[in-house]
Amino acid sequence: MKSHITNAISDFFCEYETPRQVLVRNRRVGVVCRLIQLGVLAYIIVWVFIYEKGYQSTDTAVSSVFTKMKGVGYTNVSGEERVWDVADYVFPSQGDASFVVMTNYIITEGQKMGKCPELPGKHHCSSGSDCEGGRYKRQMTGVCVNTTKTCEVLAWCPVEDDSKIPDPPLLMSAENYTLFIKNSVTFPTFKVSRSNLVEGIDKNYIGNCLHDPKTAPLCPIFRLGDIVKMSGFSFETIAKVGGAIGIVIDWTCNFDVDVRKCKPTYEFHGLYGNPDEKDDVRASVGYNFRYAKHYLEDKVQKRTLLKVFGIRFDIIVQSLVSHI
Amino acid sequence: MKSHITNAISDFFCEYETPRQVLVRNRRVGVVCRLIQLGVLAYIIVWVFIYEKGYQSTDTAVSSVFTKMKGVGYTNVSGEERVWDVADYVFPSQGDASFVVMTNYIITEGQKMGKCPELPGKHHCSSGSDCEGGRYKRQMTGVCVNTTKTCEVLAWCPVEDDSKIPDPPLLMSAENYTLFIKNSVTFPTFKVSRSNLVEGIDKNYIGNCLHDPKTAPLCPIFRLGDIVKMSGFSFETIAKVGGAIGIVIDWTCNFDVDVRKCKPTYEFHGLYGNPDEKDDVRASVGYNFRYAKHYLEDKVQKRTLLKVFGIRFDIIVQSLVSHI
Amino acid sequence: MKSHITNAISDFFCEYETPRQVLVRNRRVGVVCRLIQLGVLAYIIVWVFIYEKGYQSTDTAVSSVFTKMKGVGYTNVSGEERVWDVADYVFPSQGDASFVVMTNYIITEGQKMGKCPELPGKHHCSSGSDCEGGRYKRQMTGVCVNTTKTCEVLAWCPVEDDSKIPDPPLLMSAENYTLFIKNSVTFPTFKVSRSNLVEGIDKNYIGNCLHDPKTAPLCPIFRLGDIVKMSGFSFETIAKVGGAIGIVIDWTCNFDVDVRKCKPTYEFHGLYGNPDEKDDVRASVGYNFRYAKHYLEDKVQKRTLLKVFGIRFDIIVQSLVSHI
Repeated sequence: MKSHITNAISDFFCEYETPRQVLVRNRRVGVVCRLIQLGVLAYIIVWVFIYEKGYQSTDTAVSSVFTKMKGVGYTNVSGEERVWDVADYVFPSQGDASFVVMTNYIITEGQKMGKCPELPGKHHCSSGSDCEGGRYKRQMTGVCVNTTKTCEVLAWCPVEDDSKIPDPPLLMSAENYTLFIKNSVTFPTFKVSRSNLVEGIDKNYIGNCLHDPKTAPLCPIFRLGDIVKMSGFSFETIAKVGGAIGIVIDWTCNFDVDVRKCKPTYEFHGLYGNPDEKDDVRASVGYNFRYAKHYLEDKVQKRTLLKVFGIRFDIIVQSLVSHI
Repeated sequence: MKSHITNAISDFFCEYETPRQVLVRNRRVGVVCRLIQLGVLAYIIVWVFIYEKGYQSTDTAVSSVFTKMKGVGYTNVSGEERVWDVADYVFPSQGDASFVVMTNYIITEGQKMGKCPELPGKHHCSSGSDCEGGRYKRQMTGVCVNTTKTCEVLAWCPVEDDSKIPDPPLLMSAENYTLFIKNSVTFPTFKVSRSNLVEGIDKNYIGNCLHDPKTAPLCPIFRLGDIVKMSGFSFETIAKVGGAIGIVIDWTCNFDVDVRKCKPTYEFHGLYGNPDEKDDVRASVGYNFRYAKHYLEDKVQKRTLLKVFGIRFDIIVQSLVSHI
Repeated sequence: MKSHITNAISDFFCEYETPRQVLVRNRRVGVVCRLIQLGVLAYIIVWVFIYEKGYQSTDTAVSSVFTKMKGVGYTNVSGEERVWDVADYVFPSQGDASFVVMTNYIITEGQKMGKCPELPGKHHCSSGSDCEGGRYKRQMTGVCVNTTKTCEVLAWCPVEDDSKIPDPPLLMSAENYTLFIKNSVTFPTFKVSRSNLVEGIDKNYIGNCLHDPKTAPLCPIFRLGDIVKMSGFSFETIAKVGGAIGIVIDWTCNFDVDVRKCKPTYEFHGLYGNPDEKDDVRASVGYNFRYAKHYLEDKVQKRTLLKVFGIRFDIIVQSLVSHI
């Protein structure tokens, strides 16, 4: 038995099987064969190595974005002059990657909790029985107010009348505000950190520059009017009804060359379609939200309600870095 | 010498090596061989091409989400009637992808900066020497207040008493609020933009629809009670102690077919475990945060502190698009 | 004809082509051949299967982060004692994955809308003609104020003087605040949900623990001073001028072993460079934003403006999960 197994193992290590080859000596066949081999080789080198960089490993980044607006708005509504600074028109205030710049508003001042009739046209009634139910959309009291012929509601009174959007938008001056973007990207696997304030973008430069895709593509300070234009929207329309714009910061870098050549590019995309395109059945045009400032007047809690129309900016960082 | 090299090159291009083949004419062997070849071919076609779509390139999207709540809450706490509208119960107000809907609260009104004793049960003391240290958790004054037998602290006074969470939750009406989600996705490499308001979801449709996984899977308006139910939580529990729900918008599209067939699906995930499951050692159940409204009363700065219990919604967009 | 086709098909299924093999019986050649085969096999097993886990499919997670700060700050500015609690120093209040902890501030109290001269040194003028233009940076009235020799502006008055940053920072006590992070990750394809409160991290444990990379790597409660230290910054500098820190929660898991072994690791990265490095042309050092609290005093709308310097935390969840 033992010699059998030993033989098998010895055979396994002593044998070598190989196909029998035929050598065809023919010019035409030979050239075609070599050309095919060359083609395969060229494909591998050109496509896989040089174009697709298949030998490289890729990594996505850990990214952080900080934004800061500059500029002052001015409104003169029926003689009442007012300026709007950053603390007034940016939501939220702390400089997030996603924020809203107010460009238009409907203000309802001095609201207090109480009972008041609905706006003419809403919840029309002829007697108290029309005003029952207490559906969640409004808290009704079951009373029909004679003077307005509308139901009485328990609400922050007076109720907001948002039927007319100010036109032209109250804060058209927003066009000249500037946005400063600070973006840091860290590539954990490569232990490389980059900022959009690359080499050469120092204190003196950003003190004076303004982003322009051709003359100043690395300047991180953007004029709002320019951003809206590059996104394909009209500033006046978007300022009136509100809108959303995506700012894409693209880091497509190759760490095989000098890391300092890894620089960001900025792109602007109008989101949710263009509010300028007249389309009567289009759903949900514009961008707005309600915001309240609370205060106390004569021991009564009151609030100022703002229906804010504005431009929402979403800053999105895309990164694809390659390295051997 | 020269003729040697020339010969070698000439040989290289004129020779063609190929294995010698044996042709076995045997029905059984032949059929088995062809079946194996067929199997490999079928695997490649069915699995790689049709199922895994290995020939397609994929791309992830640039996405933006905007949310808007609707609905009015009503509370009647010891006779004081109050309504809560969107500006009162949504945090933050600007319609982010991650937001909180208040469903319950502990209110501490009229807090002002000053010195007051701690709540009974906390920082118990018998003399001033028990109240020293000035640890960072409380700013102690070193005085033991006789009436309460607790240490005096420098704080917003009176101090909040959050030992009892209102039950049933004060804003159970939140169940009937509706959430409207607008989501735009842009696939940069394919230069395609899609919105969750797809073809057919127009102004008239969203004016009346309510999302239902079966009858209205594309309606972007969701009842809060439905979302909580689909996420596997009980509304009453989550409204009382707070909780977090992830809403996943999934765009799995194939751009080889009509782009208009690329439509989103919505999924709901309860996060951080179910607060309903009784588990005494479970860490950190629920979701709450503190929020202050500042005002001036008789020249004194005061604030109303709200401990807000609510449902936190995180809207997450997933996209995987394929194309030849 | 028919018999021709039948013959071809019959041939196709009855034939089997295979290369002719040569069996070389030579010890040296055989051993070398087997060793090469063994090497290829070992490479496949060790590298592809064990190291790179090429047989596994991977999935990224749906993630949600909730944060909660604890601790009270204390300031004594020219005799006025004040405490700062969570509702005062965290922006935004609702516990987002990206938030700011205030560590220093410049306060401008009692601002109201009106006309007042610019700060000395800014917009210097000798006559009203120097104060024209109405550029967007300030709303000028065209008047040169004699007493200060600066232009008059329409603004929230008095204007903020932010030339001197308080040093040492007013809220150095922030070093002792603690941050509690709750993170939930769901892997949709594997239908697995994990929380950073893993098995063993129960109510009793998190009541007492403090994160330490060596002794308590799974404790989700972090001391701010420790985070700043681990990120490579100096707390005093970052507290004075502000800064940004990225907290990466890394879920690199293998679901082929016990799911309960899937535990997070925490890493801390200082972002935007170290403000400690003296570099005079460095652009945009620090992190700050402006924040206003509105109130009504004697029927006049006023605001308290805070220029907030703080530490911005960005919590980023990375996940790579593998499974057969």
